[in-house]
Amino acid sequence: MTGGLAGDAVDRVAVDWVAVDWGTSHLRVWLCDAAGAVLDRRDSDQGMGRLSRDGFEPALRTLLPERSAPLPVIVCGMAGSRQGWAEAPYAAAPCTPPGIDRAVAVPTQDKALQVRILPGVKQDSPADVMRGEETQVAGFLAQSPQFDGVICLPGTHTKWVHVSAGEIVSFRTFLTGEMFALLAGQSVLRHSVAEEGWDDPAFAEAMAHVLSRPAALAADLFSLRAEALLHGLDPVTARARLSGLLIGAELAAARPYWLGPQVAVIGAAGMAGAYTTALEAQGVPVVQADVQEMTLAGLRAAWAGLKEMAT
Amino acid sequence: MTGGLAGDAVDRVAVDWVAVDWGTSHLRVWLCDAAGAVLDRRDSDQGMGRLSRDGFEPALRTLLPERSAPLPVIVCGMAGSRQGWAEAPYAAAPCTPPGIDRAVAVPTQDKALQVRILPGVKQDSPADVMRGEETQVAGFLAQSPQFDGVICLPGTHTKWVHVSAGEIVSFRTFLTGEMFALLAGQSVLRHSVAEEGWDDPAFAEAMAHVLSRPAALAADLFSLRAEALLHGLDPVTARARLSGLLIGAELAAARPYWLGPQVAVIGAAGMAGAYTTALEAQGVPVVQADVQEMTLAGLRAAWAGLKEMAT
Repeated sequence: MTGGLAGDAVDRVAVDWVAVDWGTSHLRVWLCDAAGAVLDRRDSDQGMGRLSRDGFEPALRTLLPERSAPLPVIVCGMAGSRQGWAEAPYAAAPCTPPGIDRAVAVPTQDKALQVRILPGVKQDSPADVMRGEETQVAGFLAQSPQFDGVICLPGTHTKWVHVSAGEIVSFRTFLTGEMFALLAGQSVLRHSVAEEGWDDPAFAEAMAHVLSRPAALAADLFSLRAEALLHGLDPVTARARLSGLLIGAELAAARPYWLGPQVAVIGAAGMAGAYTTALEAQGVPVVQADVQEMTLAGLRAAWAGLKEMAT
Repeated sequence: MTGGLAGDAVDRVAVDWVAVDWGTSHLRVWLCDAAGAVLDRRDSDQGMGRLSRDGFEPALRTLLPERSAPLPVIVCGMAGSRQGWAEAPYAAAPCTPPGIDRAVAVPTQDKALQVRILPGVKQDSPADVMRGEETQVAGFLAQSPQFDGVICLPGTHTKWVHVSAGEIVSFRTFLTGEMFALLAGQSVLRHSVAEEGWDDPAFAEAMAHVLSRPAALAADLFSLRAEALLHGLDPVTARARLSGLLIGAELAAARPYWLGPQVAVIGAAGMAGAYTTALEAQGVPVVQADVQEMTLAGLRAAWAGLKEMAT
């Protein structure tokens, strides 16, 4: 846990609402004033994956100031899934990123807390779902309302989202990040792939290779092991090459998404950088935005909606 | 461990040599007479992955009869790798499957044991390696010396081997089996994929789908999760579909291998059956052979070579 202790004098006075990004493996809390300025930021590792249904409120309470006056809390992410705190049923694409009017109110033990969870978005065919990314898209659109094109959100499950006229038109999820983690950490490749480090040319070369022959992925993956055994392939090079193969295969599949329109990449610095490099190598100009800033911007847009509803 | 106890009277008299298939996770021993007939079969879970270098001889001894007269032991598989019992350096393709003349003699504490390990095969470019499959190929060629075409050996790391004029001409390894295990058991898909069961039409449909659009694999994989969440996809169907997607992607990449020539599939019944079904759906006639029989046939061919060398 980071941030100040609950019960600070400042907290009690100034905090008007709380923005919460609650994913499978993380819980991020921003204590905000009425204008949306951040007074304090508090994180914990109490992600949805670790919590049973009645563990959510205590996990959140630890990060909040002591209060008797009502405290609005706006949550996005996996906390709204069926296995989460309370289910916030998906909005169906095409749709605008769901705002506060579609949020689900969650009953709490602590009557001061007024918790609302924003829904995710589903797509019937091809079947797909998101929870959390829709709020990042909302944040991006709050800053660039005229954006028309594709937003790529790299992560464990990378999303490609087609956005037009303020709506999420369609989207597709790729298991790329999770496959990287499993292959690098738990497959036979773990003997040949470094845990850290990077090699730009190896990444670019592997990506170009697989973009021209994406089907060969499973064989190209084993080559990393064989190159290590036979030719002493450097583990850091192997790591960058593994990433290049997987992201390259994803780009090949997502080509209809990024060919033509404006492209924005929203992600953490390292991963967003890799996607930006990859897309720029294909001649695609990219706007890059920070994922936590976009999440907060999306939650702020929901807060603005809540204030409007109250007036 | 299965099989009789060491020290049987029968063992002491009749066993002329021992065939050993020593992989990462298994140890299989056949006690044979001079003609190659199997007198007893003994297995243990003491695969290479569990053993340090000096653990190999004791693990083997437990499965052998007590003997003072010399006992030839012929080994194939990962026991010959650098991390194994003793390194049997790779033969370089194109080459015949390495026979007893290329085997490495391993010094033992028990002077009655005469252990020889058969080498694997390597390929420089694209970098690739095999250990154990070359002996299965040798076994298949011992039975079908005129075979000219492609041998597919499904497994954790599936091999496609181009064989001509008795030689391993080239080969390619796919991580398909390992990816199936990781995705079904440890990724987000584990919530949606059954541990057992099968659905033939789902397998065929997924395979046909991915063969026509192999690049979309990483997105098709996530759809399994989304279909479960949104449309209640049956976990057994999801399992067969996951297998169909991965094997289909492999077939797409291996198309140059199976398009045209004779194709043989050597594997355990379930997995070999899936590959056979998949190939036959593409109009490719397939000969199927059992992997353990082919391993034993390959080791018998090496035993025949040893007898020739002795005369």
